[in-house]
Amino acid sequence: LTRTLSRSIPPLPLSAGHTDRAAHRRADEAWIQARLCDSRSRVAVVRGQQTLHRRDGEAVRAAWLGPEQLSEAVRREAVFLGERDGVALFAASVEADVVLPDDGAEWGELRRHLLLMEPEEAALLAFARGMAYWHARHRFCGSCGAPAECRQAGHLRACTGCGALHFPRTDPAVIVRVEHRGRCLLGRQATWDPGVYSVLAGFVEPGETLEQAVAREVLEEAGVVVSRVRYHSSQPWPFPGSLMVGFTARARSARLRRDEELEDVRWFSRREARDALQDGTLRMPSRYSISHRLMEEWLDG
Amino acid sequence: LTRTLSRSIPPLPLSAGHTDRAAHRRADEAWIQARLCDSRSRVAVVRGQQTLHRRDGEAVRAAWLGPEQLSEAVRREAVFLGERDGVALFAASVEADVVLPDDGAEWGELRRHLLLMEPEEAALLAFARGMAYWHARHRFCGSCGAPAECRQAGHLRACTGCGALHFPRTDPAVIVRVEHRGRCLLGRQATWDPGVYSVLAGFVEPGETLEQAVAREVLEEAGVVVSRVRYHSSQPWPFPGSLMVGFTARARSARLRRDEELEDVRWFSRREARDALQDGTLRMPSRYSISHRLMEEWLDG
Repeated sequence: LTRTLSRSIPPLPLSAGHTDRAAHRRADEAWIQARLCDSRSRVAVVRGQQTLHRRDGEAVRAAWLGPEQLSEAVRREAVFLGERDGVALFAASVEADVVLPDDGAEWGELRRHLLLMEPEEAALLAFARGMAYWHARHRFCGSCGAPAECRQAGHLRACTGCGALHFPRTDPAVIVRVEHRGRCLLGRQATWDPGVYSVLAGFVEPGETLEQAVAREVLEEAGVVVSRVRYHSSQPWPFPGSLMVGFTARARSARLRRDEELEDVRWFSRREARDALQDGTLRMPSRYSISHRLMEEWLDG
Repeated sequence: LTRTLSRSIPPLPLSAGHTDRAAHRRADEAWIQARLCDSRSRVAVVRGQQTLHRRDGEAVRAAWLGPEQLSEAVRREAVFLGERDGVALFAASVEADVVLPDDGAEWGELRRHLLLMEPEEAALLAFARGMAYWHARHRFCGSCGAPAECRQAGHLRACTGCGALHFPRTDPAVIVRVEHRGRCLLGRQATWDPGVYSVLAGFVEPGETLEQAVAREVLEEAGVVVSRVRYHSSQPWPFPGSLMVGFTARARSARLRRDEELEDVRWFSRREARDALQDGTLRMPSRYSISHRLMEEWLDG
């Protein structure tokens, strides 16, 4: 089953990256430094939650800069993303000190442009954004509070006090389509846009399997006991730092007990969902998300 | 396929926990405080990489303490693990200030006792150990360096300086059995016990899917391109803080190019592996690991 699914699903926008990360280069400081002095190298720039884009007709592209357009301090914390066609790719975080090129580059939210971008570039910017967020949250050592230094071309931070090593963080989360006799369990959070419902999701906690996390989240959020928990697919979700792991499951009963975490949770038949989508009272999550994919497959099924 | 596998595999020792984590209690400070003053509550104690055990004939059990046996400072950072039969369970980290009960409790490495313990207790101690490690590594805020405070019954740390919230960390890692015409790809690291080989594994990086992480790791460590990457199962691995996600895959070719990360990597036929296991020149990873499970299934297949 998994195999059939994996084959038939076109990759999600953020799952399409095939750039060689060339991890063996990270420890080669001389090589990295040379690439950071090479004007052919390309740098994706991140500022808080924004990345630098350029409009190209209907499409949106990453606005790559040359390393020489960045200050020495910014280059020192650059993250090596990989190599493409012999060109080294980096990510850099800036405050306000980057000079925007005079050719229409602009700051934007990657999430809003995802579907207008080439999947490969979207995946690279997502990688850049995820790494930038991790660096921003790990300037200091959690063990002793001393400053932590950037090492390994941005893939490690080492404490200048106690020497502790800190590696990039990725938070695994499960997302699950629960069905019961053809109906699908959807919930919404109060902060979402009106009408938006999604399959249930939550972070994996220490000491549990992915399948246990699925069962716990569905029980917590909807009071529903699940069985037949099956893996579906995975998607990086660097908003700011998650890895979404998708599952399908069956509910043992349709009885619901809503948690305060959700504003509403309910069963939708396909007909109800299609009608509500039609008249606009139900809206799907963003098209580039794994939740959209899980719902779409059910609607089509 | 996934379903058949999930059904036929008995749970791994660390995947068997079914204690109710009762997450809704975490924010109920009055309830938590009352449980920490209730001598019926049970506390699992962690000291560095060690947990407190008690021998019981051939078996090993967790040596649970009452909250009154711990100092006020230790109780303040206690982690609520959940409820079992109406009894609240906690984890606490101690330096040297805990008085060992006079009944044969002793410090030990959980990994060495895993197979001698009841799966439920092993899973609880693994949860306790994982949370203790996370707290030890997050005493200070990574964003600003100020001390971070324990909140939500130990499931959150909040910065006393900038207010940033820090949640427990779990590092997803992939582990994969790669086969090529009946042979299995096994590698060993120089630091492992002599003769031990395992299926390949590595951490998931920001911005990649689980399947991409599998492909990248196998390419990096063995120079092998894989296809048909299929999910197998998952296992928490809090030594110190991972979640292992198991896969199977097929190699496109048998040609190998070893990375410096491994001391050796090679293809084993079933007969070679069985013979080498028999004469002791090949040894399996620990019996409670997902790598052992992946190898065992192949050997039996």
